[in-house]
Amino acid sequence: MKIMVLGGDGFSGWPTSLHLSRRGHDVLILDNLSRRRIDDELGVMSLTPIQPLDTRLAAWREVSGRAIAFHNVDVACQYDRLLELVCEHRPDAIVHFAEQRAAPYSMKSSRHKRYTVDNNINATHNVLAAIVESRLDIHLVHLGTMGVYGYGATGGRIPEGYLPVSVAADDGTHKNLEILHPAYPGSVYHMTKALDQLMFQFYNNNDGVRITDLHQGIIWGTQTEETARDVRLINRFDYDGDYGTVLNRFLMQAAIGHPLTVHGGGGQKRAFIHIQDTVRCVELAIRNPPAAGDRVRIVNQMTETHRVRDLARLVAALTGAEIRCMENPRKEAAANDLDVSNATLLRLGLQPITLSNGLLREISDIARVYAGRCDWNKIPATARWTPETCSSGGVLQCGTLAACPT
Amino acid sequence: MKIMVLGGDGFSGWPTSLHLSRRGHDVLILDNLSRRRIDDELGVMSLTPIQPLDTRLAAWREVSGRAIAFHNVDVACQYDRLLELVCEHRPDAIVHFAEQRAAPYSMKSSRHKRYTVDNNINATHNVLAAIVESRLDIHLVHLGTMGVYGYGATGGRIPEGYLPVSVAADDGTHKNLEILHPAYPGSVYHMTKALDQLMFQFYNNNDGVRITDLHQGIIWGTQTEETARDVRLINRFDYDGDYGTVLNRFLMQAAIGHPLTVHGGGGQKRAFIHIQDTVRCVELAIRNPPAAGDRVRIVNQMTETHRVRDLARLVAALTGAEIRCMENPRKEAAANDLDVSNATLLRLGLQPITLSNGLLREISDIARVYAGRCDWNKIPATARWTPETCSSGGVLQCGTLAACPT
Repeated sequence: MKIMVLGGDGFSGWPTSLHLSRRGHDVLILDNLSRRRIDDELGVMSLTPIQPLDTRLAAWREVSGRAIAFHNVDVACQYDRLLELVCEHRPDAIVHFAEQRAAPYSMKSSRHKRYTVDNNINATHNVLAAIVESRLDIHLVHLGTMGVYGYGATGGRIPEGYLPVSVAADDGTHKNLEILHPAYPGSVYHMTKALDQLMFQFYNNNDGVRITDLHQGIIWGTQTEETARDVRLINRFDYDGDYGTVLNRFLMQAAIGHPLTVHGGGGQKRAFIHIQDTVRCVELAIRNPPAAGDRVRIVNQMTETHRVRDLARLVAALTGAEIRCMENPRKEAAANDLDVSNATLLRLGLQPITLSNGLLREISDIARVYAGRCDWNKIPATARWTPETCSSGGVLQCGTLAACPT
Repeated sequence: MKIMVLGGDGFSGWPTSLHLSRRGHDVLILDNLSRRRIDDELGVMSLTPIQPLDTRLAAWREVSGRAIAFHNVDVACQYDRLLELVCEHRPDAIVHFAEQRAAPYSMKSSRHKRYTVDNNINATHNVLAAIVESRLDIHLVHLGTMGVYGYGATGGRIPEGYLPVSVAADDGTHKNLEILHPAYPGSVYHMTKALDQLMFQFYNNNDGVRITDLHQGIIWGTQTEETARDVRLINRFDYDGDYGTVLNRFLMQAAIGHPLTVHGGGGQKRAFIHIQDTVRCVELAIRNPPAAGDRVRIVNQMTETHRVRDLARLVAALTGAEIRCMENPRKEAAANDLDVSNATLLRLGLQPITLSNGLLREISDIARVYAGRCDWNKIPATARWTPETCSSGGVLQCGTLAACPT
């Protein structure tokens, strides 16, 4: 199939592009390289030595014999160019990763909030408008987030996007409905993904656009089968306080001898998935599109749930690392339960990579190998959700230690 | 109170600004005059001869002895200026009308869809971000729309924003929740108001911003007590196919001897409110803000519900006008039921203006007086929701007659 990958230079987009190319698809990347610019803004680098995109693509051609095309396009700003490329390449599917994806970055300041909203909403809406204007029957596959559901807000197992509810009428009767699961986003970033859902619902209803929204858990891991084939293909590994995801941060901290930094008491239970499974899931979604007339297909793209403190204990047990609890800069419940349905992907044949068979390799192959590239100063998470989030005040205080609840 | 009115030159914003000024508030208008530019784009004029904003403001000062300040600011694009004005004027309330408000305009083309999303989402988000960044405790009053509820999607009486539902758990028990009413927007314009709701929910949860969202019915009428005081203060009257609202279009059509154009069979039941009641409601909302810690207050700002064909019959009976049914360029149900709670505004003391006591005056005082300014070519509604919405094809075909269902 012809597949356009928006944001194909990023942490998920790059390994997805390679995986789709290897599976025989004709891949075209659109990216404005914003993720690299944000590294520059934050003064951080991927722990792994990622190469410029041209070098990556040349290496992939050398290693695989397959070409991936690339256009430097800002999907949120350059609508006419986006439409032109859609009409020219007539993709069967568009995979949309072209959104700012870090919750802490989205909360750093007013400017970061506004960038995240402006970029993410216009990117998603431009893609939808371009699909409609092209009059092509293109399947849109979008990376959403488990974070739109809230954590435990509705109780019970989190379904795949749609919640059956019963509404009481004045006459005492009840009407049963299946509604889009209510959204309880916990950051501006998560909020943009909740807005995306409503845009998908509208364009699906009004224009019949076929859409799969993958509600992704927190990704861990770095390499996929494809990115591991040559060091020039290596994927990003973010460990900084803004873009680093919790488990990868623990792995890196263990590798460099830094205490594992747990925010709050670590009672937050979250959904996880390995990057290798993410790219497989995207291809499964592409190969199994919704039929014409179907509502938006929402898939929970996660394989395991864990409490943050249990992950810290697991990594500590594997490595001997120390655990330190820090004041939580986020505004979130100290603890929650979480039970998620991921029936669709299992039905489509996904065989998940579990923490128990991947963690140690991640530490030895990635975190320890590149430990020397780590800048310790970039480890603290400094973005606060509100001025009052850290009770003791200023940003630096977010880095002080607090007693770990037993 | 000090009140900032965003979009204070528009159809609702202008009479609201005058009403608030007359009631003793200190009013500051921010507007980028976009509504006048859109008139130019569409080649239409208000049926009433509206004056430039400076002339309006000078006339108001002359008539009332009260000054209203004005700054030409694009709220969606000029964040720094917005924040500066917020910090300088320290308003107690901000009334937010700074959104593109016509569903047909929002569906005219890809460009119009994109403008509506970009303008409306960034305007709303910039206001929220500015309130948070200012650290002031400002009450945000927003004009939402009844259109976010869908029409009959959940059955029963439409509550004010929040829907009590029951969710079944795996073990057979039920959990009762009150959720934000599911959104079923019928156009890109309505979709932006549904996105606004989620942004309000987030900023209310995360930052404690006090927000009232007025879910407005379709406005009819032109003048308020204040705009009627001098012809230079006259309010807009839009009759064109994009910005004209259904009842005002009927009144104008009756006045000029044009058939009343009913889209589809006219079985659509909608909620209505007179512009005079709108401005009163906004002031009631300002005088009765949510308390600190309250969730977003959602108010259904409407006073009557009617089927479109019943309104046409009413106007025809008053004026002898002919009724013609046209193919519906919109994608909407041919007929729906509608029952709406407006308990909050009645409790706050609103005494509604009813069609039965206002319609004839509107026809004699406005529509007949300015009938000579009407351009008949601008009457047809040409914006189609999808290329297939009018079954007979091209845009002009939307203007052909269809048999009126009995």
